[in-house]
Amino acid sequence: MTAPNVLDALRDALGDAVSTTDVDLAAARTDKSGHVSDAAPIAVVSARSIEDVQTVMRIATATGTPVVTRGAGTGLAGGALGGAGEIVLSTLGMTRIHEINEPDLLAVVDPGVINGDFNDLLLTRGLWFAPDPASRAISTVGGNIATGAGGLLCAKYGVTRDAVLALKVVLADGRLISVGHRSIKGVTGLDLTSLMVGSEGVLGVIVEATVRIRRITPGTVATIAGYFPDVVTAAGATAAVTAAGIQPSIMELLDPVALVAVHRYLRLPTPSSGEAHVVIQTDGPSAELEAAAVLEVLRAAGGRAEMSTDHATGEHLLAVRRALHPSLEWFGTPLIEDVSVPRSQLAAMFAEIGHIERRYGITIPTVAHAGDGNLHPNFVFEGTEVPDHIWQAAEELFTAALRLGGTLTGEHGIGLLKKRWLGDELGADQLGLQHGIKQLFDPQNLLNPGKVF
Amino acid sequence: MTAPNVLDALRDALGDAVSTTDVDLAAARTDKSGHVSDAAPIAVVSARSIEDVQTVMRIATATGTPVVTRGAGTGLAGGALGGAGEIVLSTLGMTRIHEINEPDLLAVVDPGVINGDFNDLLLTRGLWFAPDPASRAISTVGGNIATGAGGLLCAKYGVTRDAVLALKVVLADGRLISVGHRSIKGVTGLDLTSLMVGSEGVLGVIVEATVRIRRITPGTVATIAGYFPDVVTAAGATAAVTAAGIQPSIMELLDPVALVAVHRYLRLPTPSSGEAHVVIQTDGPSAELEAAAVLEVLRAAGGRAEMSTDHATGEHLLAVRRALHPSLEWFGTPLIEDVSVPRSQLAAMFAEIGHIERRYGITIPTVAHAGDGNLHPNFVFEGTEVPDHIWQAAEELFTAALRLGGTLTGEHGIGLLKKRWLGDELGADQLGLQHGIKQLFDPQNLLNPGKVF
Repeated sequence: MTAPNVLDALRDALGDAVSTTDVDLAAARTDKSGHVSDAAPIAVVSARSIEDVQTVMRIATATGTPVVTRGAGTGLAGGALGGAGEIVLSTLGMTRIHEINEPDLLAVVDPGVINGDFNDLLLTRGLWFAPDPASRAISTVGGNIATGAGGLLCAKYGVTRDAVLALKVVLADGRLISVGHRSIKGVTGLDLTSLMVGSEGVLGVIVEATVRIRRITPGTVATIAGYFPDVVTAAGATAAVTAAGIQPSIMELLDPVALVAVHRYLRLPTPSSGEAHVVIQTDGPSAELEAAAVLEVLRAAGGRAEMSTDHATGEHLLAVRRALHPSLEWFGTPLIEDVSVPRSQLAAMFAEIGHIERRYGITIPTVAHAGDGNLHPNFVFEGTEVPDHIWQAAEELFTAALRLGGTLTGEHGIGLLKKRWLGDELGADQLGLQHGIKQLFDPQNLLNPGKVF
Repeated sequence: MTAPNVLDALRDALGDAVSTTDVDLAAARTDKSGHVSDAAPIAVVSARSIEDVQTVMRIATATGTPVVTRGAGTGLAGGALGGAGEIVLSTLGMTRIHEINEPDLLAVVDPGVINGDFNDLLLTRGLWFAPDPASRAISTVGGNIATGAGGLLCAKYGVTRDAVLALKVVLADGRLISVGHRSIKGVTGLDLTSLMVGSEGVLGVIVEATVRIRRITPGTVATIAGYFPDVVTAAGATAAVTAAGIQPSIMELLDPVALVAVHRYLRLPTPSSGEAHVVIQTDGPSAELEAAAVLEVLRAAGGRAEMSTDHATGEHLLAVRRALHPSLEWFGTPLIEDVSVPRSQLAAMFAEIGHIERRYGITIPTVAHAGDGNLHPNFVFEGTEVPDHIWQAAEELFTAALRLGGTLTGEHGIGLLKKRWLGDELGADQLGLQHGIKQLFDPQNLLNPGKVF
């Protein structure tokens, strides 16, 4: 079937859920990575229900048309870009919260529910959902699950996979399966729920999620902000916090280049040369005790640090961290990277980033979730396409992360932008098995083809 | 190749690691379920290294010989029974602890390391490993991971999957792959680490595990024991504890039949008719505060309860719970079941068990991990083979658990004993995908054939 006929079939079945406006097609070609696909997709279908998703997949299978599933388009790896000959299937309009079950501490939600909206609603009942990507105000729960987006709280409150109990998934041919269970424990058969988490749309379309929710942690929240003479000292200080047996909820580190950018953006005084920034939160019944211990550790490690248990002051102390991404636009177009290493290797990874900066004559403003070893080094360039020398520098970054026992991507996914390095991490034998699983779930290679693999 | 020739090949390659003694062959035919395979396996190979495992799998592939991987044989679902024409591959002799890394809170261990030994060693450094099956004194970490064995602490400290960062796995043809990473976060490609957890030896042989470890929780441990006039009241009391926003580390419930068995075994006075028992532990900095709140909740729910923060007294209060399994032998041969339901359905599940008891004229002494909704109803019978009417009663139990939103097995696995119900939970479409994954990893169907699927 040719593209016009696919479009007819979609319109016949789904009416005004199908859009071909220039604005919609253009929006579906990019994501927050800034990368843009080569050409516009055939159409953007805004699914309103599981049945709509099934209809799209049946038409796709009958016509051999590729489908790119997309939530809010906040991905950073080009994983949801629609291109020539493809249907973009948006789940952004599926926004029902079917159940918030306090006795069982679970919720059942549509994939298009915005993480922040979900948490706002939970908060009114004294509950919350732990996965906390920086994009939470605008990103969907379905997208968070599809990429394994984590955020600031993973060391204390678990990764996204840990928060997913069950999923409904539409397969490539339109069949609907339910994986997982509503109980905390369950080991029946192979764990296809975990297999779907982080699968980036290549195995099926997540159309409903049963997630673990938590009660709001009782007690105070304490915030500690510190400044250090250099990034290695700062990284050492965060390691010393962990070594002291303290488990902060948040522990973020900004390197000197990132700090300069933020201070300029916020019109704060320029920091001393080489200065790095650490911001830490503790929560729970021992929050104040732990914060006092953190303060002592940071000062002993050579930092100036201050602490507050006041909410407004705490938010003020976090403001520098929160302003990082907007501030980077002062530099140019950012390529936000996402390597993760064992915590003990954080200082070594910063040293590697320093080597790469000097070798390529570039600056790489970097923020790290220091509590869990996930770094976001930001390459900045002119224009919209990542230049070759930046990819070469990024490749050195990936190689270094793997050498330190880490991974290419802590939480953003492989998408389009990192697939050329996938085999470096997985090895040929594991990559072969992953290809086999993809082939099993999607024999016609219709689900997000060209992404991840 | 005929069985004698397989044996020759094994002996040529592995020498005295290969046993065909009657004692070893007989032991490999059964597990803690008491179920016995139809005939003795060809041999038991005690692997000493990854290379030994690879050698066994290469011989198996070359000769088309099935392989049953086995740890300590403490399984409860017949998942590691060796039978006619099969090689039993024991990893019990692979007991090295390669690394305990405190800064990264991870450890790298051989599959044959005994959970209890591992925890004893960790304890000397102020650390521990959260998966806590009741068999921990005798079961292996590899077996815990292969079955997804959980234990008492899952509601607070996560399921076994959450504690596994990376695995080395020998594939059916002898190739070695490494899945996962040493970092807390990582979403590169499909999550084959989680796919291996709970896969019961049908996809590969786990030969090394990188696991998350924790620091010992600071603060007191408080133990609360309560007695209730009936099991529904007791279940309601545990639900009330959760509803009060308290997260105990342990919350166990013994039904009246189980309680009578334990009291008889421990030579305690016979409990009042219908009486049920609850034992709860709280830990962490607010343990005493939480325990006081628990005590109040249990009393308000109609229980007699007492509390202690003294270690010896706490152990005494836990003694009733710990004595359950030995006490069941007073009744006959136990079939230890393992359904899991959402916590809120615990009382409903106990009601279902009561119906089944009356319908079949049997008693089903039951213990529940009430904190996470995992019940172990124990069917008891004469002889070694489970009689048909017990399987019929078990089937009603499984059906009820599924109807309540639960699962066939919370932590023991499917093995041999539950595979006939696998499709009831998964549905035909998901079962087809699981079969496909099995076929992909093990095209000759050599890895634990006839188990799970």
